[in-house]
Amino acid sequence: MNELTFGVVSVGNIGSAHAASLFAGKIDRSRLGFLCDSDPAKKAFCAERFPGVPFFEDAEELFAARPDAVMICVPHPLHAELGIKALEAGINVICEKPLDVSVKRAKALCDAAEKNKKALAVMLNQRTDPIFRKARELFLSGAIGELKRSVWIITNWYRTQEYYDSGSWRATWNGEGGGVLLNQAPHNLDLWQWICGMPATLRADCRIGRFHDIEVEDEATLMCRWENGAEGIFITSTGDYPGTNRLEITGTKGRILLEHSRLTLETFEPDERVFRLDESKKPRETKKLEYTFEEKGSHKKIIANFAAHLLDGEKLTAPGRDGLNQLVLSNAAYLSSFSGKEVSLPPDGDEFEKLLAELQKNSAKKSASSSAPDGEYRKRWQVNW
Amino acid sequence: MNELTFGVVSVGNIGSAHAASLFAGKIDRSRLGFLCDSDPAKKAFCAERFPGVPFFEDAEELFAARPDAVMICVPHPLHAELGIKALEAGINVICEKPLDVSVKRAKALCDAAEKNKKALAVMLNQRTDPIFRKARELFLSGAIGELKRSVWIITNWYRTQEYYDSGSWRATWNGEGGGVLLNQAPHNLDLWQWICGMPATLRADCRIGRFHDIEVEDEATLMCRWENGAEGIFITSTGDYPGTNRLEITGTKGRILLEHSRLTLETFEPDERVFRLDESKKPRETKKLEYTFEEKGSHKKIIANFAAHLLDGEKLTAPGRDGLNQLVLSNAAYLSSFSGKEVSLPPDGDEFEKLLAELQKNSAKKSASSSAPDGEYRKRWQVNW
Repeated sequence: MNELTFGVVSVGNIGSAHAASLFAGKIDRSRLGFLCDSDPAKKAFCAERFPGVPFFEDAEELFAARPDAVMICVPHPLHAELGIKALEAGINVICEKPLDVSVKRAKALCDAAEKNKKALAVMLNQRTDPIFRKARELFLSGAIGELKRSVWIITNWYRTQEYYDSGSWRATWNGEGGGVLLNQAPHNLDLWQWICGMPATLRADCRIGRFHDIEVEDEATLMCRWENGAEGIFITSTGDYPGTNRLEITGTKGRILLEHSRLTLETFEPDERVFRLDESKKPRETKKLEYTFEEKGSHKKIIANFAAHLLDGEKLTAPGRDGLNQLVLSNAAYLSSFSGKEVSLPPDGDEFEKLLAELQKNSAKKSASSSAPDGEYRKRWQVNW
Repeated sequence: MNELTFGVVSVGNIGSAHAASLFAGKIDRSRLGFLCDSDPAKKAFCAERFPGVPFFEDAEELFAARPDAVMICVPHPLHAELGIKALEAGINVICEKPLDVSVKRAKALCDAAEKNKKALAVMLNQRTDPIFRKARELFLSGAIGELKRSVWIITNWYRTQEYYDSGSWRATWNGEGGGVLLNQAPHNLDLWQWICGMPATLRADCRIGRFHDIEVEDEATLMCRWENGAEGIFITSTGDYPGTNRLEITGTKGRILLEHSRLTLETFEPDERVFRLDESKKPRETKKLEYTFEEKGSHKKIIANFAAHLLDGEKLTAPGRDGLNQLVLSNAAYLSSFSGKEVSLPPDGDEFEKLLAELQKNSAKKSASSSAPDGEYRKRWQVNW
């Protein structure tokens, strides 16, 4: 097999952008084979933008057309259901993030991939960003010793009310399944645990509609603790303007700081746990290295990696199961915030389903629907520093 | 009256440094009149270092010698008791920070000053630091609009175990009454509320002996909320090396950032609350101003201000009652951390006394005692950036 045929299911914001990348031949050995959207109005857009590409209104018809892989780009709460259907039809899947709105549903999706022996990746495109890759490589190499503390202030996800009003599904428990933790910050939640590992417990304060007229949270503060006692604080908001993006990871032998597209590595010898007990060994200096990065991560790199995985067995950058962790963190954050209690990770899946059902019962009766396509990766999806 | 006579009670670390400043004539119109320490061993040090200055072993004898003012430099849990005696003897008081270990006792000290119509100041010397003065001036002038969020990562109070072992009173509930929130970070707690105002509620996680073999907290994370809904996070530790000092204050019209001895002011027009509802009004740019400061704050400026207050009626930089707020924050943090609950500010004074008594019951039987004098302001008291 030299070339893969992709189907794109739902031609909204992000689906149309992936379709355009594939259609333009921007992904090595990958082509746009089929399109699908339940909204018949998208048919005209696709005919004009992607001439000659078969268009279906029903995803199962697309699956029946046997693409090598499909990209699941429907609204979040439909991801697992549709992804499972594709996998059961024997088709490999790239699922948009988050895998779904709950760990339980997302886990069912991962299980379906294993059961059907098909590949599943999740669109954690920021994992391809060199600055985060470098941070992870340094951390995992032990450059800063053992984790002590990590603080991520990621408040530059600013959104206006117009943004929230732009899609009826947006910022509703029914349509989207959450707020900033599920829509904007999942990338950061994923990267945080990808670099530092998963915390063991979590407390959170999710503020519902603090800045906007929405029924979900537009601000969240997470206080986490890792198994080794390390502390984590994660602050995110869509109401701070222009906001901050600053990730600090403190270890027993140094610190990694990411800010303004720059990674600063400070290290010292010996390990702090040594001179804590023997002041005479306190370092005279810290060694400082700075790395700057021109290149950014991209969605296309995730698709290319998926193709290379299918064709050459290359390791997946964002395997499906990795997508569970951001949901473990956000589901636990909702459970903690609504109960006022600390939550052990992973949280109880059924308990979260119950909470979500409760929230959805009182949710605006907006249903999940895809948004207007334009075939472009939007600027607001980029990492801002 | 052209010159004030100061008494210094307890010639330990800080007392000896104040005494040296006064003795050397470094404080305008102020002189060192009397010294006192209950430890007779300090007598020889004083005779050599401050020749000709009368030395008492009992504070009440010093009060009877009628200085214009005394500086209370005994261990924290003795501040209020001794300060009240001085005020009742008709003597003006500069009290080392914190005013005492509990709001209730500190309040009694402030009340005594009012009742006796004597001046009371608290040694919040970092209020004289131009960078904090500028931050406050900008914030109060409305430069960044209304407060939305403030995050202070102040983890560069690194201490080794040797430091904690250097005084038997250190880091015990009996001897000191608390850990990093009471000894190192009170300055920052004070400055935070001095600039941003007092929060209305607080949740905290104080970690007992996370890094050191001590019975009090060497790490604390406070999550605060102001009356207007603004959020605050305050992270401090004596176990992070080399640690961070970064204060971010986000308002509806801009942001103030303090880091590396530099204040950065970013502002935009209109107020975010306007363009939140009308995207067409979103600012095209933010205006950025940077201020750097060579000069630092100092203990001497607080003493000089106190003298000017007594002699010329100059406004106090750190009036006694202002010293209550840092204790409101730290007392509430202990109450919240030990109960796992959110606390409304100010916390219940009796409830805190009860908690403290409980903690002291199980505390090492170390009593408050003063530490070795050297007549120098120590480097570790400085603001580090």
